[in-house]
Amino acid sequence: MKALVFDSTLKLLDLPMPTPAPGEALIRVLYAGICRTDLEIVRGYMGFHGILGHEFVGVVERSHNSFLRGKRVVGEINCVCKACTYCNMEMPRHCERRTVLGIQDRPGVFAEYVTLPEENLHLVPKDVQNEMAVFTEPLAAAFRIPEQLSVPADDRVIVLGDGKLGLLAAQVLWLHSKNTLCIGKHPWKLDLLAPLGIPTALNTEPVEGKADIVVEATGTVFGLNRALSLVRPEGTIILKTTTEKGFEMDAVSTVVNEVHIVGSRCGPFRPALEAIATGTVELTSMITAVYPLDDGVEALSRAKDHDMLKVLLHISS
Amino acid sequence: MKALVFDSTLKLLDLPMPTPAPGEALIRVLYAGICRTDLEIVRGYMGFHGILGHEFVGVVERSHNSFLRGKRVVGEINCVCKACTYCNMEMPRHCERRTVLGIQDRPGVFAEYVTLPEENLHLVPKDVQNEMAVFTEPLAAAFRIPEQLSVPADDRVIVLGDGKLGLLAAQVLWLHSKNTLCIGKHPWKLDLLAPLGIPTALNTEPVEGKADIVVEATGTVFGLNRALSLVRPEGTIILKTTTEKGFEMDAVSTVVNEVHIVGSRCGPFRPALEAIATGTVELTSMITAVYPLDDGVEALSRAKDHDMLKVLLHISS
Repeated sequence: MKALVFDSTLKLLDLPMPTPAPGEALIRVLYAGICRTDLEIVRGYMGFHGILGHEFVGVVERSHNSFLRGKRVVGEINCVCKACTYCNMEMPRHCERRTVLGIQDRPGVFAEYVTLPEENLHLVPKDVQNEMAVFTEPLAAAFRIPEQLSVPADDRVIVLGDGKLGLLAAQVLWLHSKNTLCIGKHPWKLDLLAPLGIPTALNTEPVEGKADIVVEATGTVFGLNRALSLVRPEGTIILKTTTEKGFEMDAVSTVVNEVHIVGSRCGPFRPALEAIATGTVELTSMITAVYPLDDGVEALSRAKDHDMLKVLLHISS
Repeated sequence: MKALVFDSTLKLLDLPMPTPAPGEALIRVLYAGICRTDLEIVRGYMGFHGILGHEFVGVVERSHNSFLRGKRVVGEINCVCKACTYCNMEMPRHCERRTVLGIQDRPGVFAEYVTLPEENLHLVPKDVQNEMAVFTEPLAAAFRIPEQLSVPADDRVIVLGDGKLGLLAAQVLWLHSKNTLCIGKHPWKLDLLAPLGIPTALNTEPVEGKADIVVEATGTVFGLNRALSLVRPEGTIILKTTTEKGFEMDAVSTVVNEVHIVGSRCGPFRPALEAIATGTVELTSMITAVYPLDDGVEALSRAKDHDMLKVLLHISS
């Protein structure tokens, strides 16, 4: 099978078909999405070598569970041991022995086939297009936020960042509070929120008042201090940016204002799939390019550019 | 009256007696404690000019409230407006128009007399010695921690730092969990916890397992990353250090491990006074020197040295 492999360089290779381990299904990948994390791996961060990619929709080709066979699925990316401290604490996404699809010790989905534990799979509702289903994983990461803290309907929420995750987070927070504002630096990206009625502002514009909740999704080392300047005392900052360089953090305002800072990673697939199925989020306009897997190297290169948002790989039909 | 004033340099001056504003009491200061914050102000940080000091015990000399007159008191340091957003949100310590004793827009307690709103005052129980009562304010800052998060009895707690606040925090956390460890760099300071049975370790010793709660009280820019290396996924770091330079923060481990980081400042006086009155904390051994106010400049200079812990000023009898 064809697969996009990172091993100090990125290349398209012809590899043997994967063999599902016990409890795993074999999935033919239909579409995959390129994420910032993939780009960071290609920059040499995170130390992962292998088939890239963790956002996908596919069809189950082989499974011991006859119900799954032939079904269209998306899949959770953390594959867990069910035995360690954190699995026993019902925090499986923090499993000590986890492998993570295309990120840590497990081949990813930029390939014609992939294997995943059956328990990781979620059926895609009939009416959901493949191109939308690919957003389940990043949208779930946005739905992690209301799982981590309650968002009262009148809370002032600011989402910092107009990248893919910022736009998804703004849409999810908007479902909870109509007092949500998304701040970014690209007017054309912020404009994608206009049809939903979500207020936006440019980085350069002044912001009035302080926010109860700030979601930091800037992808930069400065994002945390900007968030600290916007949050109220005892307010909460949700940190989404994983920058290898580390954040600069204003210790005085964190401590004096007793700010809560909460790291936030993967989230629940169910509310993400529901939001996609019911059309409560707008995703189509976020897709700026679709490439065939054969052009995967170019696709990842282009995905870095500032005129791009979500870039998809169309892998099979 | 004599007062220790910082105004680009630190000096003992003869100043007029302060006049209490409506609702304020005039207090004769008996003892005052030197805090790290005082030393930072003298280093030129924080921008405060005026009479230093915010930890004290004193006697009410003048008050409209006859009950208070002649009583021995300690006092909360935040003087609030009762009208702003945060006062109305029952977060008076974050009052937008607050003045803070010896720290922000209000003369401090390194003086023979000071004024404070009567509502800020707490009576000192009879059996509590003056030298112990001075610890109420810093001990209250340690009691802020269990006010901010529940500390289950079996939670693994690590306190990082063997300075004054670290030792107080270790004692307060120890009241909640006997699975508490204090890590520091000075054997003689850590040894002060031995009579209470609180386990300690040197920075250089390996630490087994991960903690549910890490209290960061190192006073250094590296404290946060050290705390991040010790806390479990979804665990909590309480940040106590206010370093003007800012923290270095490992963004990847914060986000991937979904760590909660909570800034923590002033705390409740009542449990602190109770702990002092009932002898559940050990404070005497933390006092390494007592100076008369006349030697205040020398006292603040000596308080910086590594062989010092709490340095008190004996101001009147």
